[in-house]
Amino acid sequence: MTELEDAIARVRADVAQLHSELVRYGLIVWTGGNVSGRVPGADLFVIKPSGVSYDDLAPENMILCDLDGTVVPGSEGSDRSPSSDTAAHAYVYRHMPDVGGVVHTHSTYAVAWSARGEEIPCVITAMADEFGGPIPVGPFAIIGDDSIGRGIVETLRDHRSRGLLMQNHGPFTIGSSAKDAVKAAVMLEDVARTVHIARQAGPLIPIPQEAIDSLYNRYQNVYGQSTDDRR
Amino acid sequence: MTELEDAIARVRADVAQLHSELVRYGLIVWTGGNVSGRVPGADLFVIKPSGVSYDDLAPENMILCDLDGTVVPGSEGSDRSPSSDTAAHAYVYRHMPDVGGVVHTHSTYAVAWSARGEEIPCVITAMADEFGGPIPVGPFAIIGDDSIGRGIVETLRDHRSRGLLMQNHGPFTIGSSAKDAVKAAVMLEDVARTVHIARQAGPLIPIPQEAIDSLYNRYQNVYGQSTDDRR
Amino acid sequence: MTELEDAIARVRADVAQLHSELVRYGLIVWTGGNVSGRVPGADLFVIKPSGVSYDDLAPENMILCDLDGTVVPGSEGSDRSPSSDTAAHAYVYRHMPDVGGVVHTHSTYAVAWSARGEEIPCVITAMADEFGGPIPVGPFAIIGDDSIGRGIVETLRDHRSRGLLMQNHGPFTIGSSAKDAVKAAVMLEDVARTVHIARQAGPLIPIPQEAIDSLYNRYQNVYGQSTDDRR
Amino acid sequence: MTELEDAIARVRADVAQLHSELVRYGLIVWTGGNVSGRVPGADLFVIKPSGVSYDDLAPENMILCDLDGTVVPGSEGSDRSPSSDTAAHAYVYRHMPDVGGVVHTHSTYAVAWSARGEEIPCVITAMADEFGGPIPVGPFAIIGDDSIGRGIVETLRDHRSRGLLMQNHGPFTIGSSAKDAVKAAVMLEDVARTVHIARQAGPLIPIPQEAIDSLYNRYQNVYGQSTDDRR
Repeated sequence: MTELEDAIARVRADVAQLHSELVRYGLIVWTGGNVSGRVPGADLFVIKPSGVSYDDLAPENMILCDLDGTVVPGSEGSDRSPSSDTAAHAYVYRHMPDVGGVVHTHSTYAVAWSARGEEIPCVITAMADEFGGPIPVGPFAIIGDDSIGRGIVETLRDHRSRGLLMQNHGPFTIGSSAKDAVKAAVMLEDVARTVHIARQAGPLIPIPQEAIDSLYNRYQNVYGQSTDDRR
Repeated sequence: MTELEDAIARVRADVAQLHSELVRYGLIVWTGGNVSGRVPGADLFVIKPSGVSYDDLAPENMILCDLDGTVVPGSEGSDRSPSSDTAAHAYVYRHMPDVGGVVHTHSTYAVAWSARGEEIPCVITAMADEFGGPIPVGPFAIIGDDSIGRGIVETLRDHRSRGLLMQNHGPFTIGSSAKDAVKAAVMLEDVARTVHIARQAGPLIPIPQEAIDSLYNRYQNVYGQSTDDRR
Repeated sequence: MTELEDAIARVRADVAQLHSELVRYGLIVWTGGNVSGRVPGADLFVIKPSGVSYDDLAPENMILCDLDGTVVPGSEGSDRSPSSDTAAHAYVYRHMPDVGGVVHTHSTYAVAWSARGEEIPCVITAMADEFGGPIPVGPFAIIGDDSIGRGIVETLRDHRSRGLLMQNHGPFTIGSSAKDAVKAAVMLEDVARTVHIARQAGPLIPIPQEAIDSLYNRYQNVYGQSTDDRR
Repeated sequence: MTELEDAIARVRADVAQLHSELVRYGLIVWTGGNVSGRVPGADLFVIKPSGVSYDDLAPENMILCDLDGTVVPGSEGSDRSPSSDTAAHAYVYRHMPDVGGVVHTHSTYAVAWSARGEEIPCVITAMADEFGGPIPVGPFAIIGDDSIGRGIVETLRDHRSRGLLMQNHGPFTIGSSAKDAVKAAVMLEDVARTVHIARQAGPLIPIPQEAIDSLYNRYQNVYGQSTDDRR
């Protein structure tokens, strides 16, 4: 196996396995959600096929695409269609070279904030740690051209947050790897739910900006055994 | 085995197995919920028995009925009573020839909208994809004659939505197959929950009708590997 | 084995197994909840021991009590203390001879209604089927004498409902058997949750009394394969 | 194995296993939550490593610390970093000699009360049993010095409650052992959720102080087979 084939095989395995984390944390129902991962050192990424049951996801039916979102002809799994959100993932990889993974779900509380087009305020310390501030809202954009991908990139490019809420649609998250983007998706739904519930019962206490900065900087630089798994 | 026997066996297996999807997605408690499937090429459908634990459902205890809802004498499982909702399923099969599957549950959020007699507005893109607009409300009707079945058919006949909310009662969904109707039941509860939670915290942003139309048409015609599994 | 020993063994097995249904339906956390069952043809009932993990419940550590709630000396498991709610269960068995099972939980939504001392209105057809009307509220009573048992009996004696909400405390349900009382506990939490959520978003549509009566009478007399499992 | 080595081995096993209870009861997502246990008869405690998946926790990768929170050099697992909350746990063990276990989570409803800085009122009898009154709020404090530990100790020192809500942060609980502190964390989230839901729908009925006292005293002194497992 060449080094590239080896890298592709590892990303296929990661992406297939990480979908089970979306199920474990209740972020998706039926087949609605997708994870992709960039192949290190190549202009390629791996994404799930469209409309296949999560019970049937395996490395060999993941789909290899170039950065235009075109399926690599003759590659394993290339007889299937890739996720309907492939164009948005591809746009992100083309325009954000540091991004190694992208995740999209329709997780309940994140979609609820999206349907109101309202950013999630940063009122809990775990959110300051993980996102460094509020979760921003991206534009209303429908599938069919680059408008979803562009909305993600323009919203996240100068933002600390690794996740956003596309209006009326739902959350997208990015990360240094597919696993890091899945972690961001899990944490985003967690803060969306917690802040929703907190606010139902009365006014929230803001966290001072300097405390948010201090928590974010410490968490990004100090904790965990690796960059993917902190806390 | 004749072709018909073979078709019946396949529908028995599907209907028995699909009840476990209702459990997996938390749509039912105890024995409250039922799935049925039409036998292709025959005036017959298969439905679950009344009051049997979901742990004990197997192809051989599913019940074969004609389109009047009468158990086929001598067929496997015919010593048991069919689901108490059999008459409503039968009415749908008689009057909607394209329907291949029917599902009824008492899923929490869908029943909550039903108790207010309120349709679910279409404010998230996944709902536009799947249902093409709001989820409508059917009349108050109690068990004992054709009024539940008639309420379903009259409400859904000229509607894009594959599901409705019977007032004070709960959701019924239809589909091209039993699996497609189960998918509709899963997605209906998902949108009922998400829109409920979204609206708790403030006004929702409507989706323009032309965007709803565009999403619905694309989703019905383009995505997925098959007609049952899109996205 | 005598007929009585055989009856005791069957109730021990049922009561031990039925606690897992409380876990499956999310009605309890840690060790907070208890199921008991009357031994048919004897002035005895079986209840769980106090403070034992649900993972460790087995027929042989269930506890046999007389109708005063006194552990039968020398019986299997009699070296342990019975549930702290044993006196309340015993009171119900002494005063309601048709009751074959009693269940107590601290399930979330039922306790929420209890903390407001508010009965649950009958606005969904499944609740009319199962309970025949609203779920009533019993008095505030603390552990230590017969006041909990008396509150249950006085509230349920002339009521269709097999369950009530003890104020500030939580739900108790009764049934023809331990399994029937567990079913009532599962359905009670289901209606407590659904009606809570329904009412959050606006006024509920009442069900006419004659429709409630019709649904209740039909469900009690017609459906299911047996008296324990209807629908 | 010396007596001390044996004690350490038992606490390592307990602490590793108890993290699965946090998962079982839905108190944590990803790696966000930690359990520690004091080694009986020594100035040592055991805590989980930072940022390791809950699927990979085993006795041998738990970390042994002295009461200043310093990893014991050369001890098993000492090549990893301990939980980022180790300093807070250590502070509690130094200043509260009766505490045998400490737990920190970001459980949803407890964090929601924390984000409002609001104590949870004692309106349900199970809460009177377990906590003897309201769940108090501790100060806003960020990681990096002793302020979290000091906030915990100053709030709980003269309080019946074994748990508190650190403002904008989340719950910490203490107990006679790691298992007892985990039970407190499970019960705290349960009451946070139940009282939140109860209050959404109208005013709550207070429990008279003498009833709270009576319930608390009875529960602490009478029930259960042991001090860890009551009810």
